Formats: sequence, structure tokens, C-alpha cells
Amino acid sequence: MHTVESVFETLPDFADLDGGVTRQVASFSRIAEVRGETMIFQQGSAPDALRYLVGGKAALTQRASDGTRVIIDLALPVSGLVVASVLAGTPYLMTAEALTAAAVLEIAAEPLRRLMATTPSLATAMLRRVSLDSRSATSQVLDLKLRTAAQRLGCYLLALAREPAGNGADFDLPVPKNVLAGQLGCRFENLSRAFALLREVGVETHGSKITLHDIASLRVYAVPSDVGGAEPRRPGPSEAARAFSRAFKL
Amino acid sequence: MHTVESVFETLPDFADLDGGVTRQVASFSRIAEVRGETMIFQQGSAPDALRYLVGGKAALTQRASDGTRVIIDLALPVSGLVVASVLAGTPYLMTAEALTAAAVLEIAAEPLRRLMATTPSLATAMLRRVSLDSRSATSQVLDLKLRTAAQRLGCYLLALAREPAGNGADFDLPVPKNVLAGQLGCRFENLSRAFALLREVGVETHGSKITLHDIASLRVYAVPSDVGGAEPRRPGPSEAARAFSRAFKL
Repeated sequence: MHTVESVFETLPDFADLDGGVTRQVASFSRIAEVRGETMIFQQGSAPDALRYLVGGKAALTQRASDGTRVIIDLALPVSGLVVASVLAGTPYLMTAEALTAAAVLEIAAEPLRRLMATTPSLATAMLRRVSLDSRSATSQVLDLKLRTAAQRLGCYLLALAREPAGNGADFDLPVPKNVLAGQLGCRFENLSRAFALLREVGVETHGSKITLHDIASLRVYAVPSDVGGAEPRRPGPSEAARAFSRAFKL
Repeated sequence: MHTVESVFETLPDFADLDGGVTRQVASFSRIAEVRGETMIFQQGSAPDALRYLVGGKAALTQRASDGTRVIIDLALPVSGLVVASVLAGTPYLMTAEALTAAAVLEIAAEPLRRLMATTPSLATAMLRRVSLDSRSATSQVLDLKLRTAAQRLGCYLLALAREPAGNGADFDLPVPKNVLAGQLGCRFENLSRAFALLREVGVETHGSKITLHDIASLRVYAVPSDVGGAEPRRPGPSEAARAFSRAFKL
């Protein structure tokens, strides 16, 4: 069972704040329990609350040009849902839908903005969240512009092969292939083509089971970058937040 | 000739700030005059200043996987250069290069962060800038994931045809085609292919001259979205800033 208080303790974005500030934010927050396959918010609507997924799974989707709904990304706890739109006061660019029963922390936007306007530590904490999201989105733009779908898939697989045994690795894909296609930014049929291309550099697949036979060749092919691209899309709060804290001497 | 004082008067990001705060920021700012074809900052380096291009033209570039330098975007005055990296204290994701003689406002990062930590109006102003940048980057991600290169080109041309005469429009491309390819996220040869595909929906090209013969058909083909996609990449400060000001009751 999630309570507002227990949830704030687990939110990295609020970890450096004074207890008094967090309690003020908690006073206009609530936990919404959402059933599976329910919409959390809709593309084009005006954000009324800053939302964090704190339990369950959600998908961020958008209508494609042919009218079909496309999964753009998967959200897992704990993650802010399109935070920049809330803070900018601009309409949501995407729809968020609970895929399973989910718990969502809702921080009312109006009093949050008022409190930020007088509390620099809170404004700075939100600035950190949005700066990291912005950097992550920019890194995705670069990835989409500079790499082919097969290279993006290669970088994704290399990032999953955390502790390779020598030049090889075995693991399961953590998401279904239709979600993976959305995350990588290609159509489902192009994902199959990308997997076929990667066979040449030792990538073997059986359903969701992946074997990398030649990590060195895959690396040459996919060219993960040292800055941005190869890391998982959402930089873990730890490393990125540490960099920010260093910068702000928090 | 640019002076720090005259430049701050033209910066939308600082327009709503108290004169005293702006003067403090100006006290640790300077104008750098940069020659053409000079690097402003380099991908991977740690940002030491928040930079705004205030005169001339600059390109944001990144090394592609084959080692070549690819133009990702063009910067025109007045625009912040990768603001999120500076505020997050994380390495630059891109290189900025002056294409022509350029003037760059440099706000030292260290004292800026210190001042933000005690001045909520400044933190909120920076939060606005980064939220709008983040939204713009997310909108680009969606565009790259959901549209083909030909559809992206179509949306770009529709956005340029501001005042169509009936169902047609005539105009010049505002940037060279290699820059356009980078902005749209396709290779130069794919841009030619995209223009060829658009011939079917009445797009005629002679060098940089564009004629749209059938805007209605182009619109059906490219499907510009009501939220995000079809608008020019960088939302003008006016409209987006107004939304933010409304949200924050500034």
C-alpha cells in the first residue's frame, strides 16, 4: 500500500529537499490507484498535476499519422510522467496509459507552481529533473538522427549485456518486441529486419532470448557513443543526479 | 556592437526578471566575439558557461558512427545553446561551431548556479527555458519515431508555407540542403528521395526554390499534428512563454 509520505521518501527528485518543503508538497499530493488499461492522462490535454508512476507499468503512446496508437516508451516505477509539460504549462505531447494496475503520485500543479515561486530549493530540484529529461530527450534525438534502426538495436543490446562473459552474453529481452520497436523508433517489421542484419555480427534470437556471440564485432557495427547514446535511455537517478548535485554543490 | 546590457534586454528568458537580478547576472557575463568556423564548445566537455548565440550563425554538430561530423541543427540569434547540459552540470552532447562571425553571450555557470539557489525568480526563469527545450526535444523524438523522412519534410514545408495563396505556395528553402537533412534527421541522399516522393503530392523543387501545388494533398500525406509536430522545431518565445507565464501567473 502506498501512502503519500512513504512515496516521497523514495523519490530521488525530492531527496535533497528540506523536510518542511517536502511536507508542504505532500499536503497537496495524493496517490491515485489506477486499474490496468486505464488512461492516466491524454495527449493534448492541459496538465493539472505533476505525476510520478510509483507502482505498476504504464505506456506513453501517441497517435501515429495513420491513426493507430503507437507505444513510444514504457514507464516503470519510479518515474516522472512528461514532467516538462506540467512545469511549462503546455498541453501533454503524449498519452499515458496504465498497462497493469498502477499507483500514481499526483502533485497538484497549481500549488506546486506557487510554492516553487517562493522556494528556490524546490525550483532547483524541478530544474534538475527537467534538465535531465531534456538531456535524455536530446540524446534520443541524436540517436535517432545518427544511427540506423539496426545500430540503435545493437546499442540497446550492448547496454543490456552488462556483465559479458568474455566476448559473449545471454539474456532475455526485458520488454515485448512491439514495445521495443516503439522505444527504438521503428515499425515492428523493421525490428525484424534489424535483428536479421545483426545476425552478421553474431546476434542470435529465439523469441525473447538473446545471445551475443561476438560483442567486439557488434560494438564496431553499432558504435555506441561515450556521451549519451549507448547508455540506457533514462539515465539512472544516481549517476546523473550526482553530477547535478556536484554542479550545484548540494 | 553587442554589449552585455543591450543583449540582456533582448533575451526572452530574462524578460520577466527584476532589474536587480538581471544586473547581478550581467555582472558575471561577457560577450565573446567568435570568428567564423571556430568551435564554441566541444561535445563531451564540461560546460563552464551558459551560452546564448546573439549574433551570426552557429551549427550544432555531432560525430556520426562513421566518424563524419553531422549537422544536427542550426542556431540563429537569439537562442540558448544546449542549456540543459549547463544547468544539469553534465557534459555537452553536441559541439557548437560558429558558421559565420558570431557573438556569444557567456554567463559563467558557477555564479549563475549560486544565484539560482537563492533567487526563485531566476530558478523559475531557467526552469521555463529548460522545460520548453525539453518539450521541443520530446516533440522531435515523436516526429522522428512516428513519421517517415518524406512526411517530416512535408511537415517542414507546410510550416514554411505560412500564408498560402489558396491551395498553393512559393518560397525559398531558408537553409542549404545538407543542413536541412540534419535538421530532419536523414542522410543527404535520403532527402533527395523524400523530395522525389513528395512530387506525387504536388511538391516541385528547383534548387532551393519550392512550389507547393496542392497543399491539401500534402497535408493528407504528411499529417502534421495539432500538438507539437507541425510547428517549427523551436517554439517562438512569444507563444510558449505566454503559456508558461499564464501557468506561473507571472
